[in-house]
Amino acid sequence: MEYSAIKRWLIGRPLKSEEAGEHKLNKLKALAILSSDALSSVAYGTEQILIVLMTVSAAALWYSIPISIGVLVLLTALILSYRQVIFSYPKGGGAYMVAKSNLGINFGLIAGSSLLIDYILTVAVSVSAGTDAITSAFPYLHQHTVLISVIMVILVTVLNLRGLTESAGFLAYPVYLFVFALFMLIVTGIYHIVTGTIPHTTITGIGMHVSGISLFLLLKAFSSGCSALTGVEAISNAVPNFKKPEDKNAANTLAMMGALLGILFTGVSFLAYWYGIAPKEAETVVSQIAAETFGRNWAYYFVQGTTALILVLAANTGFSAFPMLAYNLAQDRFMPNMFMVRGDRLGYSNGIITLSLLSIVVIFIFEGTTELLIPLYAVGVFLPFTLAQVGMMIKWAKEKPTGWVPKFIVNTIGALITFTVLAIFFITKFSQVWYSLLFLPICVYICLQIRLHYKALGEQLKIDVTKEFNHEVTGNVVIVPISGISRSVEKTLVYAKSITKNVIAVYIAFKDEDIAMMEEKWEKWNTGVRLITIKSRYRSIINPILKLIDTVNQKTMNDGGMVTVLIPDFITKKLWHRALHNQTALLLRAHLLQNKNVIVSTVPFRLKK
Amino acid sequence: MEYSAIKRWLIGRPLKSEEAGEHKLNKLKALAILSSDALSSVAYGTEQILIVLMTVSAAALWYSIPISIGVLVLLTALILSYRQVIFSYPKGGGAYMVAKSNLGINFGLIAGSSLLIDYILTVAVSVSAGTDAITSAFPYLHQHTVLISVIMVILVTVLNLRGLTESAGFLAYPVYLFVFALFMLIVTGIYHIVTGTIPHTTITGIGMHVSGISLFLLLKAFSSGCSALTGVEAISNAVPNFKKPEDKNAANTLAMMGALLGILFTGVSFLAYWYGIAPKEAETVVSQIAAETFGRNWAYYFVQGTTALILVLAANTGFSAFPMLAYNLAQDRFMPNMFMVRGDRLGYSNGIITLSLLSIVVIFIFEGTTELLIPLYAVGVFLPFTLAQVGMMIKWAKEKPTGWVPKFIVNTIGALITFTVLAIFFITKFSQVWYSLLFLPICVYICLQIRLHYKALGEQLKIDVTKEFNHEVTGNVVIVPISGISRSVEKTLVYAKSITKNVIAVYIAFKDEDIAMMEEKWEKWNTGVRLITIKSRYRSIINPILKLIDTVNQKTMNDGGMVTVLIPDFITKKLWHRALHNQTALLLRAHLLQNKNVIVSTVPFRLKK
Repeated sequence: MEYSAIKRWLIGRPLKSEEAGEHKLNKLKALAILSSDALSSVAYGTEQILIVLMTVSAAALWYSIPISIGVLVLLTALILSYRQVIFSYPKGGGAYMVAKSNLGINFGLIAGSSLLIDYILTVAVSVSAGTDAITSAFPYLHQHTVLISVIMVILVTVLNLRGLTESAGFLAYPVYLFVFALFMLIVTGIYHIVTGTIPHTTITGIGMHVSGISLFLLLKAFSSGCSALTGVEAISNAVPNFKKPEDKNAANTLAMMGALLGILFTGVSFLAYWYGIAPKEAETVVSQIAAETFGRNWAYYFVQGTTALILVLAANTGFSAFPMLAYNLAQDRFMPNMFMVRGDRLGYSNGIITLSLLSIVVIFIFEGTTELLIPLYAVGVFLPFTLAQVGMMIKWAKEKPTGWVPKFIVNTIGALITFTVLAIFFITKFSQVWYSLLFLPICVYICLQIRLHYKALGEQLKIDVTKEFNHEVTGNVVIVPISGISRSVEKTLVYAKSITKNVIAVYIAFKDEDIAMMEEKWEKWNTGVRLITIKSRYRSIINPILKLIDTVNQKTMNDGGMVTVLIPDFITKKLWHRALHNQTALLLRAHLLQNKNVIVSTVPFRLKK
Repeated sequence: MEYSAIKRWLIGRPLKSEEAGEHKLNKLKALAILSSDALSSVAYGTEQILIVLMTVSAAALWYSIPISIGVLVLLTALILSYRQVIFSYPKGGGAYMVAKSNLGINFGLIAGSSLLIDYILTVAVSVSAGTDAITSAFPYLHQHTVLISVIMVILVTVLNLRGLTESAGFLAYPVYLFVFALFMLIVTGIYHIVTGTIPHTTITGIGMHVSGISLFLLLKAFSSGCSALTGVEAISNAVPNFKKPEDKNAANTLAMMGALLGILFTGVSFLAYWYGIAPKEAETVVSQIAAETFGRNWAYYFVQGTTALILVLAANTGFSAFPMLAYNLAQDRFMPNMFMVRGDRLGYSNGIITLSLLSIVVIFIFEGTTELLIPLYAVGVFLPFTLAQVGMMIKWAKEKPTGWVPKFIVNTIGALITFTVLAIFFITKFSQVWYSLLFLPICVYICLQIRLHYKALGEQLKIDVTKEFNHEVTGNVVIVPISGISRSVEKTLVYAKSITKNVIAVYIAFKDEDIAMMEEKWEKWNTGVRLITIKSRYRSIINPILKLIDTVNQKTMNDGGMVTVLIPDFITKKLWHRALHNQTALLLRAHLLQNKNVIVSTVPFRLKK
């Protein structure tokens, strides 16, 4: 079996169920592992603000400073709100759980679908941004953007199919290295600024009037900057993975992450402003800052390399989150069963593969352009943010635990802010995000339909085991369609006679001569089986058989029996030989199973060469 | 069934076998119908010569006149040779038949494969050239070349699936119209020239020295011009379609076609020379001539329209020839059986669809560029030409009928000329035609392998009907894999018990708790069937079943019985519901049939909603 050999080589030997283990994370490790998605946003957050401002003029770039401050305020609000989610849902909340339990199933599904799409986009955006970091350093790779992105996705997919979990220890290092690299960059940059080595080259200083700037545009730039906040919810979903006391450790880790993210984002935004950096198509803002600060030496390549690495890690978080959420939805019967199946290496392989394929499709559609993906991505993030906050508000208002009022206020502020950001998105970037208004209801509808089907299925299959099992079947009939007289037919007839006395062979021909010849041969063969010959004027083999079955079926069911169609088939030695035979047996089987109430049986005859 | 409704609408109701009829053709109708491929070559023949000459300079274009004369000589030789094929193979020769019966099976297969490829290219070239005629007239369509070509192929495919035969009367008119249009063009052009309305604008007159011209280049231009001769073999393949006396009528029709082709080709080449027309990427030579002669009025569009039409008809000849040749090869066991099946409308639909798909692939690969396709096409034509001529030589030399010597000489000259042209192709355009050296041996090899398989199959299935049919089977065992207790399982067990006494149910679980629970329930249910439970540590459902079957199979076969695996499966009401179930039943069936010597039976349980 070549296929299985390739599979073994690619993803390794299968693991036993007992080998599944959960490692508990300490704060420092958790910080690294659960923050890659959030921290990696620094690689594109500032750039997204500058891209919008640049549509007015280079003079407008100074607005990135007040906008960055706005993003920091938002970050603080989010961190405070999510601390409360952590304490309320110590088993791991996530917007789907919070919205489902407080706002009802429909809002839960909106959050859930939104997150599924969001995880697809996490992969697409992170990988595209990672590719940007690479092509900024090596410009001749720029034309292969899509290819590089797809290779990265495939790589991460294979690693995940091999059973790489989010908690694998070595995944922490790239995050430390990235943080170190950016700190080095920011500190060196500030040192240059303080010592006057790099002059202030911005065209317009802070506060200068710029013609053409509008509130609309500033809001648009702000909403673009919010893309730097994607991923901050990750810690709240993973509370059970922390060492005891889980909730407290998680909350503190979240605060640390918020601080780190704030510092890095502010630093990058400030340097970009000071250096007067404008966004370029072929080089990222971070790459420009690093080139300006260090020149293109080892330090520059270190920044670019760690940036690319952390972005790949961010994509990897999508590969942990998507299969898990799909599993939860499948357990609630909103998604197909297959998402509950653990693969050879204990990962939910169907979820992993689905995510991989969908994100590759997205990368192809958007041609790996980070800038086009981010608005959709941010909507996918802020919609569940908002729903989670509203869910928390309702939870406080309903349960009213001691001291609930300040908590309610925090979540209300969180809800208002995230909702406002969401509204800004829809107002300023409607043309880029309107599909989500189409997709989300469709997703919710499909989820509900899936649950309906499973419910109906359960009812139809249900059985009472205490009732007596007592069914008598008599008068079974076996029909054997044959295309001639051969060893394969012989084997089938022998078997047919061993399971019932009523065996009918059916021969379909297109010409009268063929029928006459067959009948004569049959007589000679003397099998004791009755032969029915049918001339098919329309050259269909299947239709006459279907008709005959209808007749026989009616009569047999009246007698209390069941009809079996025994199909003689030969199994070729080599796979390609299959193409040399009309797949009548296959077609007949499919037709019968789909349309007729008969048992369909294949009697294989194995060819030896 | 939506699929079948679409099919009915697209290709019409099925026809009875008796409705197949053969219409005999008179000479005039035959001339039109069988010549479309050959005559349509005029649309691109001259242009191919000019394209090669243009690589030197516009001054070299005058060489098109002597080269055209060379092509005319070749045409005459071919017509004379093929007249002899007609008289020798009155049942319809074709290079495959002639080569097979005179040169042996290997050369027959070379000719056959070569022709199959040739017919694919006939479709691709004709349709691409037809598209060129259209985009020359409507330049804004130029960017949609591939799309237009593909639409044309699909159109012709559907017409052929509807049962359009080559002999349909109305197909003759476009050919008459095309001949009429080109005569009108040539006569008007000559009138203008004689009256001096259009001056002689060629840069260099005939016979002038042109620097940079070489024998190699002239040969290359000549071989390009030979593309005008593709299709002249069609009449010799279709002799039985003629009215009596078939051979004489066919031979005379061939002569008429040769004359027509010669006149049209010479006329177009002459006008192109006189007008000093150079090939352009976006406009065909014929279009330039017509625009020069008439201006862009109705007459111009008439020429372009009839050109496009006859080219589509030429593609259509591929759709008659390919399925017929595939049928002949399949009858000789060199191609899969499916090519012998007549579709609903009595056409060999599998051949039609195969041709359609392959030609679309070719169009995509070559991006609908006529110029790139023609060299391969011409090789595909001249190789069978040569083989047919050599075959005829051998036939004369072997059979030696009275007066065979002059006939032998004619075919020898034909063989030499076509072989020379072939050699010129390989020498001057090796980079464009070398694949054929790779493809043809592969095709021949595949054909031979296919025949070997069929032969081995026949031997393995063969049975002697006069021997007594007396086989006793006892001790059959039925294995029922179950995933729980349900109505579907109940139905399966009832059936199992009705066909044998030895029924074993198998339950696979991943957890000990599940097994305990199942065993308890089973006890209560009291079906009288033995249950085997297996814990699958690697979470595979199929592998443990396969192992169990091995054990049971061994034992049962020793007892002289057969093992049946009865798979309970439910048939969902809606097709999309299928996606909601793990297709374990399907996978298990496929695994068992491929790898185990057991009878595999599906007991369907039909869901009602």
